[in-house]
Amino acid sequence: MRNFAIVLSGCGVFDGAEIHEATLSMYAIKKQGANYEIFAPDIDQYHVINHITGQPMEEKRNVLIESARIARGKIIPLSEFEVNKFDAILFPGGFGAAKNLSTFAFDGPDCEINQDVKKAVLNMHKEGKPIGALCISPVLVSKLLGKVELTIGEDKETAQAIEKMGSKHKKTNHGEVVIDPDNNVFTTPCYMLDATILEIGEGAENIIRAMLKSMN
Amino acid sequence: MRNFAIVLSGCGVFDGAEIHEATLSMYAIKKQGANYEIFAPDIDQYHVINHITGQPMEEKRNVLIESARIARGKIIPLSEFEVNKFDAILFPGGFGAAKNLSTFAFDGPDCEINQDVKKAVLNMHKEGKPIGALCISPVLVSKLLGKVELTIGEDKETAQAIEKMGSKHKKTNHGEVVIDPDNNVFTTPCYMLDATILEIGEGAENIIRAMLKSMN
Repeated sequence: MRNFAIVLSGCGVFDGAEIHEATLSMYAIKKQGANYEIFAPDIDQYHVINHITGQPMEEKRNVLIESARIARGKIIPLSEFEVNKFDAILFPGGFGAAKNLSTFAFDGPDCEINQDVKKAVLNMHKEGKPIGALCISPVLVSKLLGKVELTIGEDKETAQAIEKMGSKHKKTNHGEVVIDPDNNVFTTPCYMLDATILEIGEGAENIIRAMLKSMN
Repeated sequence: MRNFAIVLSGCGVFDGAEIHEATLSMYAIKKQGANYEIFAPDIDQYHVINHITGQPMEEKRNVLIESARIARGKIIPLSEFEVNKFDAILFPGGFGAAKNLSTFAFDGPDCEINQDVKKAVLNMHKEGKPIGALCISPVLVSKLLGKVELTIGEDKETAQAIEKMGSKHKKTNHGEVVIDPDNNVFTTPCYMLDATILEIGEGAENIIRAMLKSMN
C-alpha cells in the first residue's frame, strides 16, 4: 500500500493549513487505496487570525498542536520525517504554507523556507519520489527546486514570483493538475482560484490519482 | 436548490466540531446539488484541548470565531438563524456538541442545551423540516425532542443516556443512517465508531441523500 506524508501548516486558511484541502486530500488518498501519515513542524505560527474579521488576534499558537486538530491527534513532528518510510509527500495549501512553512507571504521570491520542510522536500526529490502541492504550496517547491514547472492557478503576482524563483508557471483552471515529469512534481490550484468545496474535492482526487499513477 | 443550515461547535474533535465530519458534510451537500450556510453560537468554548496530549490548555476561544476556520470566514451567529430560509438543519459531531452546544459531556441525560440550538431545532421540528445529526450530536436531538428514534453507533453508555432522555436508540455500523419518519430526524454514527475518513465520507453522503429524499 502506497504511503503519503501529508505536511500541514496549522488549522485554518488564513493562518494555517486550508481545512478543506487537507481533509479532502486525506479522503482522496484513502479512497484511492493508499495510506497517509500527517506531519507538521513544531514551531510557533507567524500569527493568529480571527477568521471572521480577518484581523490578527493577541494569541500565540503552535503549528504542530493546531495541525493536530485536522489530524485528530495522530501527527508527527516534521523533524522526524523519514524519507524511506514514504512513497510521496503532499502539501495542502492555506496561508500557513506562506506564513509558517515559509516567509513567502512577506518576502515573495526572496522567502526563506522552514528547515524541516526544506530537508523533507529535497530528500524526497533526491530519491525521485513524487512531491505534490495544492493552492499556494507550490511556492515552497519553486523556491527549493528552482527549475520546475508548476501551477498556482492564475494569480498574476504569485505566478510572477514563481518565475522569479526560476520556475515555469502554467495557468490552470479548477481541478487541473500540472505534472513536471522530470522533477516528479504535481501541483493543482484549489482555493487559489475562486472555488467551491466541490472543486477542491476534484483537485485533490486528480492530484492523488496522478501521483499514484506515476508510482506504477 | 435545497438549502441546509450546518451548525458547528468549534474547530477540532476534542473541544469543537469534528473537522472531517463538518467538511465531508459540506462536500456531500454540494455533491448532491444542494447548498449550505454555516452557523455557530457566539459563546466561549467550554475549554481548549491540546489535540496531541488531550490535556486542557490555558486559553479561551470563542465557538463562532473558531468555527469560522472550517467555514473560511463565511459564518452566521446561530442567534440569527431563520427557519424559513432553510430546508434542513444538520449537526456534524465532535465533542463541541457535548461541551459547547450542550452540557452532555458533563451532565449526561440531565444536560442543558444551548438556547440558540434549542430554538433552531424546535422551530425546524415544528415546521416538519428534516433534522440531521452525526456522531455524538444526536444527543442534542434526543434531549430536545424526547420520543424519537436515533443512533450514536454502539457506545453503550451513550445509548443508555439516550434511552433515559426518552428516545429509542438503534445500534448501527459504518455509514448506516437511522431515519425517524415521524419526527423527520436522521442520524449516523461517524466517529462514534472507530472509523476511517472514508467511512465518514460514506456516512455524510448517506445522511444527506436520505434527508434530500425526504424533501421530495
